[in-house]
Amino acid sequence: MSSVKFSYEKLERFCRDAFIKFGFTSEEAAQISDVLLLADLYGVKSHGTQRLVRYHKSIENGCTNPKAKPEIVFETPVSAVIDAHAAMGQLVSIFATNLAIKKAKEVGMAFVSVKNSNHFGIAGYYTKMALDAGMIGIAATNSESIMVHTNSREAVLGSNPIAFAMPAEPYPFWFDAATTVVPKGKLEVYHKADKELSDGWAVDETGAESHDAKRVLGCIDKKLGSGGILPVGGKSEDSGSHKGYGYSMICELLCSITSGGATSNHHVRAKGQPAGTCHSFIVIDPKIFGDPEEIKEHLSVFLEELRSAKRADENVPIYTHGEKEAISYKERMENGIDVDISTVSEMVNICNYLGMDSVQYLGDIDISEAKESTYEVSYKK
Amino acid sequence: MSSVKFSYEKLERFCRDAFIKFGFTSEEAAQISDVLLLADLYGVKSHGTQRLVRYHKSIENGCTNPKAKPEIVFETPVSAVIDAHAAMGQLVSIFATNLAIKKAKEVGMAFVSVKNSNHFGIAGYYTKMALDAGMIGIAATNSESIMVHTNSREAVLGSNPIAFAMPAEPYPFWFDAATTVVPKGKLEVYHKADKELSDGWAVDETGAESHDAKRVLGCIDKKLGSGGILPVGGKSEDSGSHKGYGYSMICELLCSITSGGATSNHHVRAKGQPAGTCHSFIVIDPKIFGDPEEIKEHLSVFLEELRSAKRADENVPIYTHGEKEAISYKERMENGIDVDISTVSEMVNICNYLGMDSVQYLGDIDISEAKESTYEVSYKK
Repeated sequence: MSSVKFSYEKLERFCRDAFIKFGFTSEEAAQISDVLLLADLYGVKSHGTQRLVRYHKSIENGCTNPKAKPEIVFETPVSAVIDAHAAMGQLVSIFATNLAIKKAKEVGMAFVSVKNSNHFGIAGYYTKMALDAGMIGIAATNSESIMVHTNSREAVLGSNPIAFAMPAEPYPFWFDAATTVVPKGKLEVYHKADKELSDGWAVDETGAESHDAKRVLGCIDKKLGSGGILPVGGKSEDSGSHKGYGYSMICELLCSITSGGATSNHHVRAKGQPAGTCHSFIVIDPKIFGDPEEIKEHLSVFLEELRSAKRADENVPIYTHGEKEAISYKERMENGIDVDISTVSEMVNICNYLGMDSVQYLGDIDISEAKESTYEVSYKK
Repeated sequence: MSSVKFSYEKLERFCRDAFIKFGFTSEEAAQISDVLLLADLYGVKSHGTQRLVRYHKSIENGCTNPKAKPEIVFETPVSAVIDAHAAMGQLVSIFATNLAIKKAKEVGMAFVSVKNSNHFGIAGYYTKMALDAGMIGIAATNSESIMVHTNSREAVLGSNPIAFAMPAEPYPFWFDAATTVVPKGKLEVYHKADKELSDGWAVDETGAESHDAKRVLGCIDKKLGSGGILPVGGKSEDSGSHKGYGYSMICELLCSITSGGATSNHHVRAKGQPAGTCHSFIVIDPKIFGDPEEIKEHLSVFLEELRSAKRADENVPIYTHGEKEAISYKERMENGIDVDISTVSEMVNICNYLGMDSVQYLGDIDISEAKESTYEVSYKK
């Protein structure tokens, strides 16, 4: 697929102004844009500008409320439970993370969970906020149910990513991954490319393993009640299915159970109704273990040992988590961010919808090659 | 392999008296036995009486010091770092978990990490301690390096299990799993049975995937510097290798980095020297999120939804984590615990070594079918 390269500044101006037009304050719009664009800068394309169309639909359909303000409904010195009241996930999550950082600075560690929210972007944005404050960060979220747990054919759990970050040099440890073996976006890519799914990725509505992306996506999107994506570890306990299922459960417990919110299987996808997404944010000040500089040095040495281990293939480098993202960030800040032509087309649509001059914001781009968005078809007008 | 069924009481008496003879106080011996036997009661055979021979060798060789007392070397109201001084892993871990529970009761949550320790048995014993106090528990440990991380052929990380438990009815959520795709013990079982390893389990010293258990075990035991077991998610990023590698990293960071102890690749296996194992214990009081009874009820409902989801195969039940263990515990407490004849033979050896009357403790058992222990060959006299 062809793509267009934009400078970070150009995309940031477009995103910020679009979210202002959607009804957010300029500070809120800047926060949302920052979360989205960090994903693009880190190379996590699925969670960057590519998601704009989903947020657009969610706001338009009254699932996300731009005027909602998060409310702390329970609080202790080390914790808080927040009701998002259907706010934009990014906004309540930045609020929650800042609260967790403040509490961690005061008491050493803190745990803030959130209910009644919406998609929050990349979990790793919030662990990066902890990193920027010199802290260890953990962030997690549940989602619509797409994961078929071990021996089930019904998707009960979400993609349920867990992110974990800890300061180190020259790159922090920054891990952010869905607990499904692959994200739903990967099935969409395989579908578009007419590629067969790999072994251990998905099951169809009968519970049998499936290599047919279209069929599995149909199960999820049509809410057939059966079929979906497998946990990391695949279908059988032999390959560790119960472990991925367990990590997904840990995510679910941290988010929906501690907040008293909706578990993934009770998320809503209907006009005018909030999704019910739940998040959690844990922040730990390394000072509670001793000298933060010594701890950072210890981790930095260990990460270098991992990177310089003997390679399975001399031509394939060994990475530590967050290294690729740090490299990508620097490169894209300098040289710009590639955006798929289909996403550009969606951005032009957003301009038209919001009464923004797309040529002024994005340039005069030929979008004839763009494919129509297949995402969130139930929301199409 | 044939086995002998013992009552819990009989095994407990044997283990307790053996550890007293090894030099522990009767209270310490009871604690160690409790950890070991919970593994057998839960059906986690690899970590029960089967491990006695390893503890025997470790004490005999001066790696574990029965007289060592754990020392708190750094402390805050929410945290502590403990130097185990080469104590028995179980003892320092019970001490650390009790400290974490005490702190969590006072401030809501607590994080205690431990360095310079030894093998601590099943991680889930310590999360069960948290459960018994009505708390959420997380426990983790690093180990000798056996995991070959993504794109590496060198084992740098350990088996690095993470355990997580939270109160629920009729069974708590109780998850305890190595972040390797399979534990080392599984390779030993396959080796004994002359079975080929499954895809995505292990690589040999060249970095190529291997189905040869003997060859891979040789890599680990002879410390060849290459070859070992893969993370959950297997060998390639396509199947989620980087995710299992990430979970193993989280374990490592929680244990060795926060405690300032030895990372898995710096563990020692030599006479007279402590292993350097590190652990971590996080305890969270559900009261910091609201009413613990409501939270427990919320989780209990969700677990039941998972168990009663549509099955992939009507004849194969869906479990939640900890359910099999709760069933096994009840059954074995009532009907006794099966111990492999080879393990019984090792127990007879321990009796002879310690001057205990094996017939009085274990009965007059024909151990002619027992295989010689292949474990820890470097320690053989």
